[in-house]
Amino acid sequence: MAENHDADALVTSTDPLHPANLIPELCASFYRLGWVTGTGGGICIRTGDKVYIAPSGVQKERIEPSHIFVLPYPQPDPSPHTDRIFLRRPKLNLKESACTPLFWNAFEKRNAGSCIHTHSQNAVMATLLWEGDLFEISHQMIKGVRTGGNGKTLSYLDTLKVPIIANTPDEEDLKDSMAEAMEKYPDAAAILVRRHGIYVWGDDWQKAKTQTECLDYLFEIGVKMKLAGIPTVLNN
Amino acid sequence: MAENHDADALVTSTDPLHPANLIPELCASFYRLGWVTGTGGGICIRTGDKVYIAPSGVQKERIEPSHIFVLPYPQPDPSPHTDRIFLRRPKLNLKESACTPLFWNAFEKRNAGSCIHTHSQNAVMATLLWEGDLFEISHQMIKGVRTGGNGKTLSYLDTLKVPIIANTPDEEDLKDSMAEAMEKYPDAAAILVRRHGIYVWGDDWQKAKTQTECLDYLFEIGVKMKLAGIPTVLNN
Amino acid sequence: MAENHDADALVTSTDPLHPANLIPELCASFYRLGWVTGTGGGICIRTGDKVYIAPSGVQKERIEPSHIFVLPYPQPDPSPHTDRIFLRRPKLNLKESACTPLFWNAFEKRNAGSCIHTHSQNAVMATLLWEGDLFEISHQMIKGVRTGGNGKTLSYLDTLKVPIIANTPDEEDLKDSMAEAMEKYPDAAAILVRRHGIYVWGDDWQKAKTQTECLDYLFEIGVKMKLAGIPTVLNN
Amino acid sequence: MAENHDADALVTSTDPLHPANLIPELCASFYRLGWVTGTGGGICIRTGDKVYIAPSGVQKERIEPSHIFVLPYPQPDPSPHTDRIFLRRPKLNLKESACTPLFWNAFEKRNAGSCIHTHSQNAVMATLLWEGDLFEISHQMIKGVRTGGNGKTLSYLDTLKVPIIANTPDEEDLKDSMAEAMEKYPDAAAILVRRHGIYVWGDDWQKAKTQTECLDYLFEIGVKMKLAGIPTVLNN
Repeated sequence: MAENHDADALVTSTDPLHPANLIPELCASFYRLGWVTGTGGGICIRTGDKVYIAPSGVQKERIEPSHIFVLPYPQPDPSPHTDRIFLRRPKLNLKESACTPLFWNAFEKRNAGSCIHTHSQNAVMATLLWEGDLFEISHQMIKGVRTGGNGKTLSYLDTLKVPIIANTPDEEDLKDSMAEAMEKYPDAAAILVRRHGIYVWGDDWQKAKTQTECLDYLFEIGVKMKLAGIPTVLNN
Repeated sequence: MAENHDADALVTSTDPLHPANLIPELCASFYRLGWVTGTGGGICIRTGDKVYIAPSGVQKERIEPSHIFVLPYPQPDPSPHTDRIFLRRPKLNLKESACTPLFWNAFEKRNAGSCIHTHSQNAVMATLLWEGDLFEISHQMIKGVRTGGNGKTLSYLDTLKVPIIANTPDEEDLKDSMAEAMEKYPDAAAILVRRHGIYVWGDDWQKAKTQTECLDYLFEIGVKMKLAGIPTVLNN
Repeated sequence: MAENHDADALVTSTDPLHPANLIPELCASFYRLGWVTGTGGGICIRTGDKVYIAPSGVQKERIEPSHIFVLPYPQPDPSPHTDRIFLRRPKLNLKESACTPLFWNAFEKRNAGSCIHTHSQNAVMATLLWEGDLFEISHQMIKGVRTGGNGKTLSYLDTLKVPIIANTPDEEDLKDSMAEAMEKYPDAAAILVRRHGIYVWGDDWQKAKTQTECLDYLFEIGVKMKLAGIPTVLNN
Repeated sequence: MAENHDADALVTSTDPLHPANLIPELCASFYRLGWVTGTGGGICIRTGDKVYIAPSGVQKERIEPSHIFVLPYPQPDPSPHTDRIFLRRPKLNLKESACTPLFWNAFEKRNAGSCIHTHSQNAVMATLLWEGDLFEISHQMIKGVRTGGNGKTLSYLDTLKVPIIANTPDEEDLKDSMAEAMEKYPDAAAILVRRHGIYVWGDDWQKAKTQTECLDYLFEIGVKMKLAGIPTVLNN
C-alpha cells in the first residue's frame, strides 16, 4: 500500500485545472447537461502515472476535491478489478467509481489521458433506434471526433461509426466486451452501451470532453432525424 | 403548543447542509429542473424527531430559511391533518405545505428521512401513457432506485413498478389512497399521481433526491420509447 | 411633464425587491426560460400610482435599473397610446416597451399590479394546435391559476379556458382586441395572441409570475398531449 | 507584420463590454444554449478598423481574453484566406477561427460589425426539413429580423427567407458559396449551411446576437410546425 500521511496533498491545489478541482467542476457541468443525474456517470483524469477518480454512488454535482481517489498507473494487475493500489483515498466511507475497469480500458488500449461516462438520453435513445451493433451517421458535424478517439479528426465526408455493446447488471462486467469492441473497431472513438450510456476517451480531459459533446450532439440529431424519417447515412 | 422565543434558532445555521438551508437550495435547483414551477412541489426533511417543511403556495425558488416550518415527529395525531403541533412557524402569514400529510405517509410507512414532491412533466406524461395503475419499465438504468425506497437497489434485470393513484382536487385528500398504494405495493419506491406528479422518499435527502432523479430519468426515457413505439418492458 | 432632476431616485434602490431591480432580474430569468429571447416580451410592475416598464427592443437579459421607465397611474388619457406622461425616463435613446397599452389593459380591467408578456413556444404552439378562439384543458394542475387572474384559484375539476386573439403587425394594435377578449371572458386569467405569445397579469409580480409559470406548464403539457393523441378536456 | 510588444493591450480591459471580454462571455452563453458545443461556432466583433476573433478548435465556454486574435480591417488581401495580417496573436499555440473568411464576407458585403456562427440543432433540422435552397416562414415573430441583416425590420406580414447552401468538408471553402448566396439574396439576414449550422450578422454584436436568437426561435418553431403537419407559410 503506497499511501502515506501526505496523500491529501495529491488532491489539494489552488489551481482550478488540477484534476482534483476539475473533476468536481466538470461533473457539476455534466449534471446540468443531464449526463450524470442520479449519481450515474462521471469523468476520470490520468496525468502520466497518476489516475484521479470520483467516488461511486454519490451526487455527481456535489463532489469535493477531498472525495477524489488517486491511483498509480499502471497497476500491478494491469486491469485492476479487485485489490487495487491507491496513492490516496478519501477518509469518508466511499468506494471508487464502478467505472474504474472501463476507464482502464481507455488507458491501456488508447493511451487515454481521460475517459468520460454518461447516461445521456441521446446516447440511450440512439442504442434503441440503431438496432445492430453500430451507430452510424454521415454528413453531419462529425469533424470534432478523432479516429480511435486519439488520431486525426474525421472529415465531413466520413461515416462515423460507434460500436454498441450489450449492458450487464454490474458496471465492471462490461470490461471484457468493451475491450473486445475497442479491438474489433480500432477507429472507434467511443463505446455505446445499449440501454445504459456511453464511454468516451481522449488524450486529455479537453479532448475527452469536446468529443463527448460532439458525439452527444450527433446522437441527438441522429435520433431526431430517425424519428422524422430522414436517412442518417448518405452516399457521397 | 411547543413554541418558545428561541424557535428561530431551529432554522438559523451557517451550515449549508442544515435542513433550513438545504430546503431553499434544493427547491431552487428543482425549479431549474422544471419540477416545482408555479409554486407546486417541494421537499421536506426529517432529522430524527424534527420535520422541516416549506410553506404552501410560494415561489419555490425564492424560499428563505426563515420561511421554514419545524414540526415535532411524531405528532400526537399520527397523521396530522388539522391542529398540527409546531416547534417553529414563520412570522409571515404562511401556511405549511399542503403536502404535509403525504410526507407523513413516507415517514410513518417507510421511516423516511426525506420526501420530495414534483409536478415534473415526465411523471405526468407517464401517468397519461401508462393507463393502468402501474408504470413499468425494464432494462434501463434502474439500479439507482431502492426496493420500497429504502431497501436494496434494483438490478438491471428487475422490472421497476411505480403505482399510479388518481388525483383529487385537494392535495391532502390524496393521503389515504397514497397510503393504500404504499401498503399494496411494499416494494414501490414512489407513488405517481395521475395528471399531477409524484411523491418520492428516501432514508435521507440525498437518497430521496437521487431516487427522484433516477425515476424522472426513467419516466422521460419511457415516454420517449412509448411515443417511438419501442416496448418498455422486455422479458429477460 | 412631471419629470424633475430627482427622477433617477425612482429607479435607485438597494432593495432587491424594488421594481427597478426586480424587472432586470426577472427578465434575465425569463430569458433563461426562453420566454423573451431576441428582445421580445418582458414584465411591468405597478405599485399603486407608479408603473415601472422596461425599454423596447433591447436584450431583456441585460436590462439595468437605469433603463427603466416610470409612469404615473392613471394617465390623463386612460389608455395611453401616444403623448404618455412619465415620471422618469432613461437618459439613453430608448423607447418604452411597445407592450405598454396592453399592460394598461391589465391595470384598467383587472386592477393588476403586474403584467407579463412572453413569446414562449409552448404558448405559440398552443395557439396553432387549438384552432378556435379558446385554449381549453382540464384535469391538470390548473389550481395555481386564478379566475380572472385575480380571483379565487381554479379547482382540479374546472376547465381552464384562455382566449386566443389574432396577431397584428404592430404590438399596440392588439389593445382593442385584447380588451374585447377580457370583457367577453371575465374569468380568463390571460390572453393568448395567435402566432405570437401571451399576456398574463396578477395582483402583484409574484402572482403574475407564478400564474405565467402555471399557464406555460399547461400549454406545454397540452401540446404534448395533443401531439400524442390524448384528449385534453375530460368530462367530470 | 504590424505586431509590437504592446499588442496585449488590445485585449486587456476592465470594461466588460470590450470585445476581448465580450467574446468569452458571449461564447459561454452560446454554449449554454447548445449553439457552440464541441468547440464549434463562435462570434467575432469588428469595431471600425479592428476585428476580434476567437481561436479555432478550443472549448468555446472557456475562452479567455488572452486567447483573442486582433486583425486590422481591411486586410491587404480583401478576403484573407492565407497570410493574414495580425495586430495581436495569443502566445499559446492557437490558430484563428476557421470561420474567419466567412466572417469577412459579412464585413465586406454587409458592413457588419459582428458575425455569429452556430451549430444549433434547430438550424440544422431546418436545413433537413426544408429541402430546397430557402428556409421560409411567415406569420410568426419575425419582426426582430432586419432586411439584409442591417436594414429595416421585417413585418409580421412579410415572409422570412433564409438561403441554404451546401456544406463543404473545410469551413473556409464555404466562402464563395456563402458570398454568392448573399449576392443572390440581398435581403437575406443570414445564411444557413445544410447539415452544419448558420452564419448571422448585424451592425454590432447586440444586433447580431438578437437576430441570431430570433432566427433560432423561428427555426425551432418552424421545425415543430413542420413535424406537426402545420403549414409554415400562409398567404396574407
